[in-house]
Amino acid sequence: MDVFQNIVMIGAGNVATHLAFALQQKGFSINQVYSRSETSAKLLAQKLESPYTVEIRSLEQSADIYIIAVSDDAIGTVAEKLKFDNQVIVHTSGSVPMDVLKAGSKRTGVVYPLQTFSKSREIDFQNIPVCIEASSDELLAKLEKFISTISNDVRHVNSEQRRVLHLAAVFACNFPNFMYAIAEDIISDAGLNLDILRPLIKETADKVMSRSPLEAQTGPARRNDEASLHKHLDLLRRYPEYKDLYEMISQAIRKKYNSFDKLRKRPN
Amino acid sequence: MDVFQNIVMIGAGNVATHLAFALQQKGFSINQVYSRSETSAKLLAQKLESPYTVEIRSLEQSADIYIIAVSDDAIGTVAEKLKFDNQVIVHTSGSVPMDVLKAGSKRTGVVYPLQTFSKSREIDFQNIPVCIEASSDELLAKLEKFISTISNDVRHVNSEQRRVLHLAAVFACNFPNFMYAIAEDIISDAGLNLDILRPLIKETADKVMSRSPLEAQTGPARRNDEASLHKHLDLLRRYPEYKDLYEMISQAIRKKYNSFDKLRKRPN
Repeated sequence: MDVFQNIVMIGAGNVATHLAFALQQKGFSINQVYSRSETSAKLLAQKLESPYTVEIRSLEQSADIYIIAVSDDAIGTVAEKLKFDNQVIVHTSGSVPMDVLKAGSKRTGVVYPLQTFSKSREIDFQNIPVCIEASSDELLAKLEKFISTISNDVRHVNSEQRRVLHLAAVFACNFPNFMYAIAEDIISDAGLNLDILRPLIKETADKVMSRSPLEAQTGPARRNDEASLHKHLDLLRRYPEYKDLYEMISQAIRKKYNSFDKLRKRPN
Repeated sequence: MDVFQNIVMIGAGNVATHLAFALQQKGFSINQVYSRSETSAKLLAQKLESPYTVEIRSLEQSADIYIIAVSDDAIGTVAEKLKFDNQVIVHTSGSVPMDVLKAGSKRTGVVYPLQTFSKSREIDFQNIPVCIEASSDELLAKLEKFISTISNDVRHVNSEQRRVLHLAAVFACNFPNFMYAIAEDIISDAGLNLDILRPLIKETADKVMSRSPLEAQTGPARRNDEASLHKHLDLLRRYPEYKDLYEMISQAIRKKYNSFDKLRKRPN
Protein backbone atom coordinates (compact mmCIF):
# COMPACT_ATOMS: atom_id res chain seq x y z
CA MET A 1 0.00 0.00 0.00
CA ASP A 2 1.51 3.27 -1.11
CA VAL A 3 1.17 6.33 1.02
CA PHE A 4 0.64 9.75 -0.42
CA GLN A 5 3.61 11.22 -2.22
CA ASN A 6 2.47 14.60 -3.44
CA ILE A 7 0.98 16.94 -0.91
CA VAL A 8 -0.71 20.31 -1.19
CA MET A 9 -0.88 22.27 2.04
CA ILE A 10 -3.89 24.56 2.24
CA GLY A 11 -3.18 27.03 5.02
CA ALA A 12 0.03 28.47 6.41
CA GLY A 13 -0.70 28.89 10.12
CA ASN A 14 0.76 27.08 13.11
CA VAL A 15 -0.68 23.65 12.39
CA ALA A 16 0.08 23.85 8.66
CA THR A 17 3.65 24.91 9.38
CA HIS A 18 4.45 22.22 11.94
CA LEU A 19 2.73 19.50 9.93
CA ALA A 20 4.43 20.50 6.67
CA PHE A 21 7.87 20.48 8.29
CA ALA A 22 7.31 17.14 9.98
CA LEU A 23 6.25 15.62 6.64
CA GLN A 24 9.08 17.18 4.68
CA GLN A 25 11.59 15.89 7.21
CA LYS A 26 10.33 12.37 6.53
CA GLY A 27 10.95 12.80 2.81
CA PHE A 28 7.47 13.79 1.63
CA SER A 29 7.23 16.55 -0.89
CA ILE A 30 5.02 19.55 -0.23
CA ASN A 31 4.21 20.40 -3.85
CA GLN A 32 2.40 23.63 -3.15
CA VAL A 33 1.33 25.91 -0.32
CA TYR A 34 -1.90 27.89 -0.45
CA SER A 35 -2.94 30.73 1.79
CA ARG A 36 -5.21 33.66 1.08
CA SER A 37 -2.58 35.77 2.85
CA GLU A 38 0.38 36.22 0.52
CA THR A 39 2.71 37.02 3.42
CA SER A 40 1.89 33.74 5.16
CA ALA A 41 1.92 31.66 1.97
CA LYS A 42 5.28 33.06 0.93
CA LEU A 43 6.84 32.65 4.37
CA LEU A 44 5.95 28.97 4.66
CA ALA A 45 6.68 28.23 0.99
CA GLN A 46 10.13 29.77 1.27
CA LYS A 47 10.98 27.73 4.34
CA LEU A 48 9.83 24.57 2.55
CA GLU A 49 11.34 25.64 -0.80
CA SER A 50 7.96 24.92 -2.37
CA PRO A 51 5.83 27.00 -4.78
CA TYR A 52 2.82 28.83 -3.38
CA THR A 53 -0.43 30.39 -4.54
CA VAL A 54 -3.04 32.73 -3.08
CA GLU A 55 -5.75 31.62 -5.53
CA ILE A 56 -7.78 28.51 -4.90
CA ARG A 57 -8.33 28.13 -8.65
CA SER A 58 -4.56 27.94 -9.16
CA LEU A 59 -4.23 24.90 -6.93
CA GLU A 60 -2.31 22.06 -8.45
CA GLN A 61 -4.92 19.48 -9.44
CA SER A 62 -2.91 16.28 -9.42
CA ALA A 63 -1.63 15.97 -5.85
CA ASP A 64 -2.43 12.82 -3.87
CA ILE A 65 -3.65 14.61 -0.79
CA TYR A 66 -4.88 18.10 0.10
CA ILE A 67 -4.42 19.01 3.74
CA ILE A 68 -6.77 21.81 4.79
CA ALA A 69 -5.26 23.48 7.85
CA VAL A 70 -7.19 26.75 7.91
CA SER A 71 -9.41 28.28 10.58
CA ASP A 72 -12.48 26.19 11.46
CA ASP A 73 -15.01 28.47 9.84
CA ALA A 74 -13.14 28.51 6.51
CA ILE A 75 -12.83 24.73 6.09
CA GLY A 76 -16.27 24.27 4.51
CA THR A 77 -15.81 27.18 2.11
CA VAL A 78 -12.45 25.87 0.94
CA ALA A 79 -13.79 22.33 0.49
CA GLU A 80 -16.65 23.58 -1.67
CA LYS A 81 -14.18 25.12 -4.07
CA LEU A 82 -12.33 21.86 -4.56
CA LYS A 83 -13.93 19.50 -7.06
CA PHE A 84 -11.94 16.31 -7.06
CA ASP A 85 -12.64 12.74 -8.08
CA ASN A 86 -10.04 10.54 -6.53
CA GLN A 87 -7.84 12.94 -4.62
CA VAL A 88 -7.99 12.83 -0.86
CA ILE A 89 -8.98 15.89 1.18
CA VAL A 90 -8.38 16.02 4.91
CA HIS A 91 -8.76 18.74 7.48
CA THR A 92 -6.87 19.14 10.76
CA SER A 93 -9.54 20.57 13.04
CA GLY A 94 -10.72 19.22 16.37
CA SER A 95 -14.19 20.64 16.25
CA VAL A 96 -15.31 20.38 12.61
CA PRO A 97 -17.03 17.17 11.48
CA MET A 98 -15.52 15.25 8.56
CA ASP A 99 -18.80 15.73 6.65
CA VAL A 100 -18.05 19.31 5.66
CA LEU A 101 -15.43 18.01 3.23
CA LYS A 102 -18.00 16.00 1.21
CA ALA A 103 -18.49 18.83 -1.25
CA GLY A 104 -14.88 18.59 -2.38
CA SER A 105 -14.30 14.87 -2.85
CA LYS A 106 -15.70 11.42 -2.14
CA ARG A 107 -12.49 10.51 -0.29
CA THR A 108 -12.19 12.56 2.85
CA GLY A 109 -10.56 12.35 6.22
CA VAL A 110 -9.36 14.14 9.33
CA VAL A 111 -5.85 14.42 10.75
CA TYR A 112 -6.13 16.20 14.11
CA PRO A 113 -2.84 16.62 15.99
CA LEU A 114 -3.71 17.08 19.65
CA GLN A 115 -1.14 19.65 20.67
CA THR A 116 -0.69 23.38 21.14
CA PHE A 117 1.49 24.89 18.43
CA SER A 118 3.37 28.16 18.30
CA LYS A 119 5.25 29.16 15.19
CA SER A 120 8.28 30.20 17.18
CA ARG A 121 8.57 26.99 19.17
CA GLU A 122 9.92 23.71 17.84
CA ILE A 123 8.11 20.58 18.80
CA ASP A 124 8.81 16.89 18.39
CA PHE A 125 5.95 15.63 16.24
CA GLN A 126 6.78 11.97 17.06
CA ASN A 127 5.20 12.31 20.51
CA ILE A 128 2.05 14.13 19.45
CA PRO A 129 -1.14 12.07 19.52
CA VAL A 130 -2.77 12.40 16.09
CA CYS A 131 -6.46 11.57 15.79
CA ILE A 132 -7.47 10.28 12.39
CA GLU A 133 -10.80 9.52 10.74
CA ALA A 134 -11.63 8.65 7.12
CA SER A 135 -14.57 8.13 4.80
CA SER A 136 -13.60 4.48 4.17
CA ASP A 137 -11.65 1.73 5.91
CA GLU A 138 -9.22 1.60 3.01
CA LEU A 139 -8.51 5.33 3.33
CA LEU A 140 -8.26 5.08 7.12
CA ALA A 141 -5.56 2.42 6.76
CA LYS A 142 -3.74 4.57 4.24
CA LEU A 143 -3.94 7.67 6.43
CA GLU A 144 -2.69 5.67 9.38
CA LYS A 145 0.34 4.50 7.44
CA PHE A 146 0.96 8.03 6.23
CA ILE A 147 0.71 9.76 9.62
CA SER A 148 2.62 6.98 11.39
CA THR A 149 5.70 8.21 9.57
CA ILE A 150 5.60 11.42 11.62
CA SER A 151 3.91 10.35 14.87
CA ASN A 152 4.25 7.30 17.11
CA ASP A 153 0.78 7.87 18.48
CA VAL A 154 -1.86 7.68 15.76
CA ARG A 155 -5.41 6.99 16.94
CA HIS A 156 -8.76 6.28 15.33
CA VAL A 157 -11.15 8.88 16.72
CA ASN A 158 -14.58 9.60 15.26
CA SER A 159 -16.05 13.08 14.79
CA GLU A 160 -18.09 12.90 17.98
CA GLN A 161 -15.15 11.86 20.17
CA ARG A 162 -12.97 14.46 18.48
CA ARG A 163 -15.43 17.21 19.46
CA VAL A 164 -15.18 16.09 23.07
CA LEU A 165 -11.38 16.01 22.84
CA HIS A 166 -11.34 19.52 21.47
CA LEU A 167 -13.39 20.66 24.44
CA ALA A 168 -11.24 18.69 26.89
CA ALA A 169 -8.12 20.29 25.40
CA VAL A 170 -9.44 23.67 26.51
CA PHE A 171 -9.47 22.37 30.09
CA ALA A 172 -6.10 20.63 29.69
CA CYS A 173 -4.29 23.51 28.01
CA ASN A 174 -5.98 26.88 27.56
CA PHE A 175 -7.44 27.18 31.05
CA PRO A 176 -4.32 26.01 32.93
CA ASN A 177 -2.32 28.54 30.92
CA PHE A 178 -4.73 31.28 31.93
CA MET A 179 -4.35 30.21 35.57
CA TYR A 180 -0.57 30.60 35.13
CA ALA A 181 -1.19 34.07 33.71
CA ILE A 182 -3.24 35.05 36.76
CA ALA A 183 -0.49 33.74 39.06
CA GLU A 184 2.07 35.82 37.18
CA ASP A 185 -0.16 38.87 37.34
CA ILE A 186 -0.62 38.61 41.10
CA ILE A 187 3.03 38.01 41.99
CA SER A 188 4.25 40.75 39.66
CA ASP A 189 2.24 43.20 41.71
CA ALA A 190 4.10 41.92 44.79
CA GLY A 191 7.46 42.55 43.13
CA LEU A 192 8.12 38.90 42.34
CA ASN A 193 8.89 37.12 39.10
CA LEU A 194 7.25 34.03 37.56
CA ASP A 195 10.61 32.20 37.88
CA ILE A 196 9.77 31.40 41.47
CA LEU A 197 6.61 29.53 40.39
CA ARG A 198 8.01 27.73 37.33
CA PRO A 199 9.24 24.61 39.18
CA LEU A 200 5.77 24.32 40.74
CA ILE A 201 4.04 24.63 37.37
CA LYS A 202 6.31 21.98 35.92
CA GLU A 203 5.91 19.54 38.80
CA THR A 204 2.12 19.95 38.72
CA ALA A 205 2.05 18.84 35.09
CA ASP A 206 4.71 16.15 35.56
CA LYS A 207 2.74 14.65 38.43
CA VAL A 208 -0.23 13.77 36.23
CA MET A 209 1.96 12.09 33.63
CA SER A 210 1.80 8.98 35.78
CA ARG A 211 -1.28 9.45 37.95
CA SER A 212 -4.83 10.70 37.73
CA PRO A 213 -5.32 14.43 38.46
CA LEU A 214 -8.25 13.44 40.64
CA GLU A 215 -5.80 11.72 43.00
CA ALA A 216 -3.15 14.43 42.63
CA GLN A 217 -5.37 17.32 43.76
CA THR A 218 -3.94 19.39 46.63
CA GLY A 219 -4.57 22.87 48.01
CA PRO A 220 -6.85 24.74 50.42
CA ALA A 221 -10.11 23.83 48.66
CA ARG A 222 -9.15 20.14 48.51
CA ARG A 223 -8.48 19.98 52.24
CA ASN A 224 -11.33 22.32 53.21
CA ASP A 225 -8.83 24.75 54.72
CA GLU A 226 -11.22 27.60 55.50
CA ALA A 227 -8.52 29.80 57.00
CA SER A 228 -6.44 29.83 53.83
CA LEU A 229 -9.49 30.23 51.61
CA HIS A 230 -10.50 33.32 53.57
CA LYS A 231 -6.99 34.78 53.52
CA HIS A 232 -6.85 34.29 49.77
CA LEU A 233 -10.21 35.89 49.13
CA ASP A 234 -9.10 38.78 51.27
CA LEU A 235 -5.91 39.22 49.22
CA LEU A 236 -7.99 39.04 46.03
CA ARG A 237 -10.16 42.04 46.92
CA ARG A 238 -8.01 44.09 44.54
CA TYR A 239 -8.81 41.69 41.70
CA PRO A 240 -12.59 41.24 41.61
CA GLU A 241 -12.52 38.99 38.54
CA TYR A 242 -9.85 36.69 39.87
CA LYS A 243 -11.74 36.61 43.16
CA ASP A 244 -14.87 35.37 41.39
CA LEU A 245 -12.85 32.71 39.57
CA TYR A 246 -11.13 31.68 42.79
CA GLU A 247 -14.44 31.26 44.55
CA MET A 248 -16.12 29.34 41.77
CA ILE A 249 -13.24 26.95 41.13
CA SER A 250 -12.70 26.36 44.87
CA GLN A 251 -16.39 25.67 45.28
CA ALA A 252 -16.30 23.15 42.43
CA ILE A 253 -13.26 21.42 43.94
CA ARG A 254 -14.93 21.17 47.34
CA LYS A 255 -18.10 19.79 45.83
CA LYS A 256 -16.21 17.26 43.72
CA TYR A 257 -14.14 15.97 46.61
CA ASN A 258 -16.92 15.87 49.14
CA SER A 259 -18.63 13.26 47.04
CA PHE A 260 -15.33 11.64 46.10
CA ASP A 261 -14.25 11.31 49.74
CA LYS A 262 -17.66 9.98 50.74
CA LEU A 263 -17.35 7.39 48.00
CA ARG A 264 -13.95 6.28 49.20
CA LYS A 265 -14.94 6.14 52.83
CA ARG A 266 -18.10 4.20 52.19
CA PRO A 267 -17.68 0.75 53.77
CA ASN A 268 -19.04 -1.21 50.81
CA MET B 1 29.63 30.77 60.56
CA ASP B 2 28.35 27.38 61.57
CA VAL B 3 25.07 26.13 60.30
CA PHE B 4 22.71 24.12 62.43
CA GLN B 5 23.84 20.62 63.26
CA ASN B 6 21.10 19.17 65.40
CA ILE B 7 17.60 19.30 64.07
CA VAL B 8 14.24 18.43 65.56
CA MET B 9 11.47 17.92 63.02
CA ILE B 10 8.04 18.83 64.36
CA GLY B 11 5.52 17.23 62.02
CA ALA B 12 5.64 14.14 59.83
CA GLY B 13 3.56 15.08 56.80
CA ASN B 14 4.64 15.65 53.19
CA VAL B 15 6.74 18.76 53.76
CA ALA B 16 8.37 17.39 56.93
CA THR B 17 9.20 14.14 55.17
CA HIS B 18 10.74 15.66 52.04
CA LEU B 19 12.62 18.30 54.00
CA ALA B 20 13.96 15.80 56.54
CA PHE B 21 15.23 13.49 53.81
CA ALA B 22 16.85 16.29 51.87
CA LEU B 23 18.67 17.45 55.02
CA GLN B 24 19.70 13.98 56.07
CA GLN B 25 21.12 13.33 52.62
CA LYS B 26 23.36 16.34 53.06
CA GLY B 27 24.72 14.94 56.31
CA PHE B 28 22.54 16.76 58.82
CA SER B 29 21.24 14.78 61.72
CA ILE B 30 17.53 14.71 62.46
CA ASN B 31 17.77 14.16 66.20
CA GLN B 32 14.09 13.65 66.81
CA VAL B 33 10.74 13.55 65.04
CA TYR B 34 7.55 14.75 66.70
CA SER B 35 4.00 14.17 65.53
CA ARG B 36 0.82 13.92 67.55
CA SER B 37 0.00 10.92 65.38
CA GLU B 38 2.10 7.99 66.50
CA THR B 39 1.69 6.23 63.15
CA SER B 40 3.08 9.21 61.25
CA ALA B 41 5.86 9.92 63.78
CA LYS B 42 6.97 6.32 63.77
CA LEU B 43 6.87 5.99 59.98
CA LEU B 44 9.08 9.01 59.38
CA ALA B 45 11.37 8.26 62.32
CA GLN B 46 11.96 4.71 61.10
CA LYS B 47 12.84 5.90 57.61
CA LEU B 48 15.27 8.41 59.10
CA GLU B 49 16.50 6.02 61.78
CA SER B 50 15.80 8.74 64.33
CA PRO B 51 13.96 8.65 67.67
CA TYR B 52 10.43 10.04 67.84
CA THR B 53 7.94 11.34 70.35
CA VAL B 54 4.23 12.11 70.40
CA GLU B 55 4.52 14.41 73.42
CA ILE B 56 5.57 18.02 73.01
CA ARG B 57 6.92 18.00 76.57
CA SER B 58 9.28 15.15 75.63
CA LEU B 59 10.94 17.20 72.90
CA GLU B 60 14.69 17.25 73.09
CA GLN B 61 15.63 20.66 74.48
CA SER B 62 19.14 21.09 73.12
CA ALA B 63 18.76 20.99 69.36
CA ASP B 64 20.01 23.93 67.26
CA ILE B 65 16.85 24.31 65.22
CA TYR B 66 13.22 23.20 65.49
CA ILE B 67 11.42 22.94 62.18
CA ILE B 68 7.65 23.17 62.58
CA ALA B 69 6.08 21.54 59.54
CA VAL B 70 2.54 20.98 60.78
CA SER B 71 -0.80 22.20 59.43
CA ASP B 72 -1.18 26.00 59.36
CA ASP B 73 -3.69 26.22 62.19
CA ALA B 74 -1.49 24.17 64.54
CA ILE B 75 1.71 26.21 64.13
CA GLY B 76 0.81 28.83 66.73
CA THR B 77 -0.30 26.24 69.28
CA VAL B 78 2.92 24.28 68.89
CA ALA B 79 5.07 27.43 69.14
CA GLU B 80 3.38 28.44 72.39
CA LYS B 81 4.39 25.17 73.96
CA LEU B 82 8.07 25.72 73.14
CA LYS B 83 9.93 27.94 75.57
CA PHE B 84 13.40 28.43 74.24
CA ASP B 85 16.11 30.98 74.80
CA ASN B 86 18.64 30.64 72.05
CA GLN B 87 17.28 27.83 69.94
CA VAL B 88 15.89 28.69 66.55
CA ILE B 89 12.29 27.91 65.61
CA VAL B 90 11.14 28.05 61.99
CA HIS B 91 7.92 27.09 60.29
CA THR B 92 7.44 25.99 56.68
CA SER B 93 4.09 27.54 55.82
CA GLY B 94 3.28 29.88 52.95
CA SER B 95 0.38 31.62 54.59
CA VAL B 96 1.31 31.96 58.27
CA PRO B 97 3.25 35.07 59.35
CA MET B 98 6.58 34.61 61.13
CA ASP B 99 5.15 36.46 64.15
CA VAL B 100 3.17 33.48 65.43
CA LEU B 101 6.47 31.86 66.45
CA LYS B 102 7.36 34.69 68.85
CA ALA B 103 5.82 32.88 71.81
CA GLY B 104 8.37 30.07 71.49
CA SER B 105 11.67 31.87 71.04
CA LYS B 106 13.31 35.21 70.25
CA ARG B 107 15.03 33.66 67.24
CA THR B 108 12.47 32.72 64.64
CA GLY B 109 12.30 32.22 60.92
CA VAL B 110 10.43 30.74 57.97
CA VAL B 111 11.58 28.15 55.44
CA TYR B 112 8.85 27.85 52.81
CA PRO B 113 9.60 25.42 49.97
CA LEU B 114 7.44 26.45 47.02
CA GLN B 115 6.51 23.07 45.63
CA THR B 116 3.71 20.50 45.71
CA PHE B 117 4.73 17.42 47.66
CA SER B 118 3.31 13.92 47.71
CA LYS B 119 4.70 11.30 50.04
CA SER B 120 4.81 8.71 47.31
CA ARG B 121 6.67 10.84 44.80
CA GLU B 122 10.37 11.61 44.92
CA ILE B 123 11.43 15.13 44.13
CA ASP B 124 14.76 16.81 43.60
CA PHE B 125 14.99 19.38 46.36
CA GLN B 126 17.90 21.17 44.66
CA ASN B 127 15.54 22.77 42.14
CA ILE B 128 12.86 23.86 44.58
CA PRO B 129 12.69 27.59 45.31
CA VAL B 130 12.82 28.00 49.09
CA CYS B 131 11.59 31.29 50.55
CA ILE B 132 13.29 32.24 53.79
CA GLU B 133 12.67 34.94 56.38
CA ALA B 134 14.19 35.49 59.82
CA SER B 135 13.86 37.65 62.91
CA SER B 136 17.40 39.07 62.47
CA ASP B 137 19.90 39.59 59.68
CA GLU B 138 22.35 37.29 61.41
CA LEU B 139 19.79 34.50 61.54
CA LEU B 140 18.73 35.14 57.94
CA ALA B 141 22.32 34.67 56.79
CA LYS B 142 22.59 31.51 58.83
CA LEU B 143 19.32 30.11 57.47
CA GLU B 144 20.43 30.94 53.96
CA LYS B 145 23.66 29.03 54.41
CA PHE B 146 21.74 26.12 55.95
CA ILE B 147 19.07 25.86 53.25
CA SER B 148 21.55 26.44 50.43
CA THR B 149 22.93 23.02 51.19
CA ILE B 150 19.70 21.44 49.97
CA SER B 151 18.41 23.99 47.41
CA ASN B 152 20.09 26.01 44.67
CA ASP B 153 17.29 28.56 44.78
CA VAL B 154 17.02 30.19 48.21
CA ARG B 155 15.22 33.54 48.29
CA HIS B 156 14.54 36.24 50.83
CA VAL B 157 10.77 36.70 50.91
CA ASN B 158 8.93 38.60 53.63
CA SER B 159 5.66 37.47 55.22
CA GLU B 160 3.54 39.71 53.00
CA GLN B 161 5.12 38.50 49.75
CA ARG B 162 4.92 34.94 50.98
CA ARG B 163 1.15 35.27 51.47
CA VAL B 164 0.83 36.42 47.89
CA LEU B 165 2.99 33.54 46.69
CA HIS B 166 0.83 31.09 48.59
CA LEU B 167 -2.21 32.47 46.81
CA ALA B 168 -0.46 32.49 43.43
CA ALA B 169 0.55 28.87 43.96
CA VAL B 170 -3.13 27.96 44.03
CA PHE B 171 -3.48 29.43 40.54
CA ALA B 172 -0.21 27.87 39.36
CA CYS B 173 -0.80 24.41 40.76
CA ASN B 174 -4.13 23.52 42.39
CA PHE B 175 -6.40 25.09 39.79
CA PRO B 176 -4.54 23.77 36.72
CA ASN B 177 -4.66 20.32 38.30
CA PHE B 178 -8.41 20.63 38.74
CA MET B 179 -8.72 21.65 35.09
CA TYR B 180 -6.83 18.45 34.18
CA ALA B 181 -9.30 16.51 36.34
CA ILE B 182 -12.24 18.02 34.46
CA ALA B 183 -10.62 17.15 31.13
CA GLU B 184 -10.16 13.57 32.28
CA ASP B 185 -13.74 13.40 33.51
CA ILE B 186 -15.13 14.59 30.18
CA ILE B 187 -13.06 12.34 27.93
CA SER B 188 -13.64 9.29 30.12
CA ASP B 189 -17.34 9.67 29.41
CA ALA B 190 -16.48 9.61 25.69
CA GLY B 191 -14.57 6.36 26.10
CA LEU B 192 -11.14 7.98 25.91
CA ASN B 193 -8.19 7.91 28.28
CA LEU B 194 -6.15 10.79 29.73
CA ASP B 195 -3.08 9.43 27.88
CA ILE B 196 -4.22 11.22 24.76
CA LEU B 197 -4.08 14.59 26.58
CA ARG B 198 -0.86 14.09 28.52
CA PRO B 199 1.51 15.44 25.84
CA LEU B 200 -0.69 18.54 25.62
CA ILE B 201 -0.63 19.06 29.39
CA LYS B 202 3.14 18.70 29.41
CA GLU B 203 3.74 21.04 26.47
CA THR B 204 1.42 23.67 28.00
CA ALA B 205 3.56 23.75 31.15
CA ASP B 206 6.86 23.48 29.25
CA LYS B 207 5.90 26.44 27.08
CA VAL B 208 5.79 28.84 30.02
CA MET B 209 9.19 27.76 31.28
CA SER B 210 10.68 30.20 28.80
CA ARG B 211 7.88 32.65 28.03
CA SER B 212 5.11 34.53 29.77
CA PRO B 213 1.75 32.72 29.94
CA LEU B 214 0.13 35.96 28.84
CA GLU B 215 1.89 35.59 25.48
CA ALA B 216 1.39 31.83 25.35
CA GLN B 217 -2.42 31.92 25.64
CA THR B 218 -4.28 30.07 22.88
CA GLY B 219 -7.77 28.62 22.46
CA PRO B 220 -11.29 29.63 21.44
CA ALA B 221 -11.69 32.38 24.06
CA ARG B 222 -8.32 33.91 23.17
CA ARG B 223 -9.18 34.18 19.49
CA ASN B 224 -12.84 35.07 20.07
CA ASP B 225 -13.91 31.93 18.24
CA GLU B 226 -17.66 32.13 18.89
CA ALA B 227 -18.45 28.97 16.94
CA SER B 228 -16.19 26.80 19.09
CA LEU B 229 -17.34 28.47 22.29
CA HIS B 230 -20.95 27.67 21.43
CA LYS B 231 -20.15 24.09 20.47
CA HIS B 232 -18.34 23.61 23.75
CA LEU B 233 -21.13 25.07 25.84
CA ASP B 234 -23.52 22.80 24.01
CA LEU B 235 -21.39 19.73 24.80
CA LEU B 236 -21.21 20.85 28.44
CA ARG B 237 -24.97 20.80 28.95
CA ARG B 238 -24.52 17.45 30.72
CA TYR B 239 -22.08 19.05 33.17
CA PRO B 240 -23.75 22.19 34.54
CA GLU B 241 -20.85 22.98 36.91
CA TYR B 242 -18.16 22.60 34.32
CA LYS B 243 -20.31 24.70 31.98
CA ASP B 244 -20.40 27.54 34.51
CA LEU B 245 -16.63 27.32 34.96
CA TYR B 246 -16.09 27.23 31.19
CA GLU B 247 -18.18 30.34 30.72
CA MET B 248 -16.61 32.29 33.54
CA ILE B 249 -13.01 31.47 32.64
CA SER B 250 -13.63 32.10 28.92
CA GLN B 251 -15.22 35.41 29.76
CA ALA B 252 -12.22 36.40 31.88
CA ILE B 253 -9.82 35.42 29.08
CA ARG B 254 -11.76 37.46 26.53
CA LYS B 255 -11.86 40.46 28.81
CA LYS B 256 -8.16 40.20 29.60
CA TYR B 257 -7.11 39.96 25.97
CA ASN B 258 -9.44 42.59 24.65
CA SER B 259 -7.60 45.13 26.73
CA PHE B 260 -4.25 43.43 26.11
CA ASP B 261 -4.74 43.49 22.32
CA LYS B 262 -5.89 47.09 22.42
CA LEU B 263 -2.76 47.96 24.35
CA ARG B 264 -0.51 46.27 21.84
CA LYS B 265 -2.25 47.76 18.83
CA ARG B 266 -2.17 51.26 20.28
CA PRO B 267 0.11 53.37 18.05
CA ASN B 268 2.03 55.03 20.90
